[in-house]
Amino acid sequence: MAPQSLSSVNLTILGSASAQPSSTRNHSALALRLGGDVWLFDCGEATQHRIQKSNVKMGRIKKIFITHTHGDHIFGLLPLMASCLDGSGGMVNESEDGRLQSGSTEETQPLEIYGPLGTRAFIRTGIFYSYTNLGAPYVVHELRLPTDPVDGDYTTLPPRSPELPGRNIMQTNGAWTDIFPDEVVSVAAAPILHSVPCVGFVVTELPIPGKIDPKDYVPHLKRTNTPMSVMRQLQQGESVELSDGTILKGPLRRPGRKVAILGDTYDPSPIIDLALDADLLVHEATNAHLPRVDPNTKDDDTYESVEARTKSRGHSTPQMAGAFAKRIRAKRLLLNHFSARYAGNDDVDEEAKKIMEAIRGLAMQEFDGPVICARDFMSFDVELPH
Amino acid sequence: MAPQSLSSVNLTILGSASAQPSSTRNHSALALRLGGDVWLFDCGEATQHRIQKSNVKMGRIKKIFITHTHGDHIFGLLPLMASCLDGSGGMVNESEDGRLQSGSTEETQPLEIYGPLGTRAFIRTGIFYSYTNLGAPYVVHELRLPTDPVDGDYTTLPPRSPELPGRNIMQTNGAWTDIFPDEVVSVAAAPILHSVPCVGFVVTELPIPGKIDPKDYVPHLKRTNTPMSVMRQLQQGESVELSDGTILKGPLRRPGRKVAILGDTYDPSPIIDLALDADLLVHEATNAHLPRVDPNTKDDDTYESVEARTKSRGHSTPQMAGAFAKRIRAKRLLLNHFSARYAGNDDVDEEAKKIMEAIRGLAMQEFDGPVICARDFMSFDVELPH
Repeated sequence: MAPQSLSSVNLTILGSASAQPSSTRNHSALALRLGGDVWLFDCGEATQHRIQKSNVKMGRIKKIFITHTHGDHIFGLLPLMASCLDGSGGMVNESEDGRLQSGSTEETQPLEIYGPLGTRAFIRTGIFYSYTNLGAPYVVHELRLPTDPVDGDYTTLPPRSPELPGRNIMQTNGAWTDIFPDEVVSVAAAPILHSVPCVGFVVTELPIPGKIDPKDYVPHLKRTNTPMSVMRQLQQGESVELSDGTILKGPLRRPGRKVAILGDTYDPSPIIDLALDADLLVHEATNAHLPRVDPNTKDDDTYESVEARTKSRGHSTPQMAGAFAKRIRAKRLLLNHFSARYAGNDDVDEEAKKIMEAIRGLAMQEFDGPVICARDFMSFDVELPH
Repeated sequence: MAPQSLSSVNLTILGSASAQPSSTRNHSALALRLGGDVWLFDCGEATQHRIQKSNVKMGRIKKIFITHTHGDHIFGLLPLMASCLDGSGGMVNESEDGRLQSGSTEETQPLEIYGPLGTRAFIRTGIFYSYTNLGAPYVVHELRLPTDPVDGDYTTLPPRSPELPGRNIMQTNGAWTDIFPDEVVSVAAAPILHSVPCVGFVVTELPIPGKIDPKDYVPHLKRTNTPMSVMRQLQQGESVELSDGTILKGPLRRPGRKVAILGDTYDPSPIIDLALDADLLVHEATNAHLPRVDPNTKDDDTYESVEARTKSRGHSTPQMAGAFAKRIRAKRLLLNHFSARYAGNDDVDEEAKKIMEAIRGLAMQEFDGPVICARDFMSFDVELPH
């Protein structure tokens, strides 16, 4: 059967902070909902707490993508796994008394985790030393760099049930272009430049049925007394031969939605080709120069000095994010991963709103599409391209 | 100079949940404030978030004691260390712009962590794979069992700066009686029975000055024209010879405060001798049988079946905690580590209050001293014994 389009693609921000959490922003985590499934991107400390307070369902998490193994992006992974996978040993499975069910007991597919070298070893060692007994399987596939070992797990600790053997995925032409097979979406990734190995992910919905205009087809179907139900085949782009020999061709398929989610970076240019024309680009904007807006601005700072300091730490400014969005012709830009100095309660606090609006404005100096500043618990749909 | 008594001993509950967190209880963590210093006992996920919302100061944390390495007791340790020790690499130190200072830059003493075998390896591997660059030193001392190796770090990963070499502390007569030297308090520990190696800690203030009755001394001082300032020496228990040859002896020192903090256990009897006469006993009470009070009670459950199930998971009921408090002649019992089914908002919710009062009542069936049920952010002083 031809691939279907997704009923919806929704992004929920579970954490939009860089480094330390604040009362308004938590560590990095995004939930991408593809129909009923949830894919998590990064998992900072207390991501499961964020999920409990959001409308994202823990039991729906099927895949977790880790952009890099810095603590503020992975320290919530082990406790989340313990909760998702009915971990006992401290993380007691209490489902027998009808509480705290995670929904994973019905799962046969392992939880799939993708990340750079070290993701598997971090998880395995953490699970081992914490005596965590997971009640359901998981597997870690690593996106390895040409300088990484092709084989091995980067730890001397052997795998232990229920960890399943993961793949070490090597690059093809500088990217990981075929991460796993799927009938509805494809995922590709490429390295992006940061202080440690870091990855950007591009999730692309496979081509979806083209727009069909009934006027082009219905007269032929009526003329030949063909049942209207063949419209469904035509809608899928198939061809139908009518009783009089006429061949109707359904409309050509058109591109599905494309979402590019980048980890921390001061230069994501290796992912340009993969991310071109993304309907949504998620790009970090850790630090900004906001004279007369941010009262903590130092007198001797200039945009140049702030950009230089931001880059030296492996990060980006809103202008850098905007320039990259323009370069890949993104339809929409989501700024993310803000310094804790930029409070995330801009929906209710005037001071925070002024600062986040200024940050948005800086990105719009470079990019003329819509720009959104991430706020924890913000949730929105990624629309089909027109 | 003779040891002083502490200005105050205060316990703040940062997390009182077993297993998974709920909206009202977080994973295990207690902060014991000894004068100005903070000692943390266990550090479940999001303990630093709890600290941010409490009146405990992160920069005051000097020692962390881990009862056992189950995830719900240690998954907050790495992110807390990154924040306490100016960790960069994801956990960016932003103090240069005057924000997010942790106060640890003035530290010369390393953060000291005590826990069972595996604590050091858990921390070292987690820090390594997450590229966490700590800006201040730490050291992990392990309380090892007779069946544990005497030497080695339980990982093939070598130590890396700023980790300092830790001690492997072996038992003497079944306990760890002299964990570190201190002029004000002593800490001892003993194994307690759980599903994995687990420790109970006993913090004892060194003997403090006895109660002095001025009537016993002042007439002698007046008669011999001795300055009243010698009362300070007498108060410390010293002897003073007066001009007429009379020797005044200050009152004998009396025991200081004693706090016993136990990890998860179904039988803590190996710590009885150390914990005797504790002014405060912190004991878990994970599960309770509450017919007619807890609507989730199963019809065919009895106290015996609940106790058997609780023990089989390595845990205790309120009655078991009460019986142990009686056995060690504790002055006060704090019940802790509750199943997530027992909501922790009993200060504002009538239903929760009913359940927590019932749990308290079960412990009081066995123990006739005061019983408190832990609630997150609850804070109280441990008073000097009368």
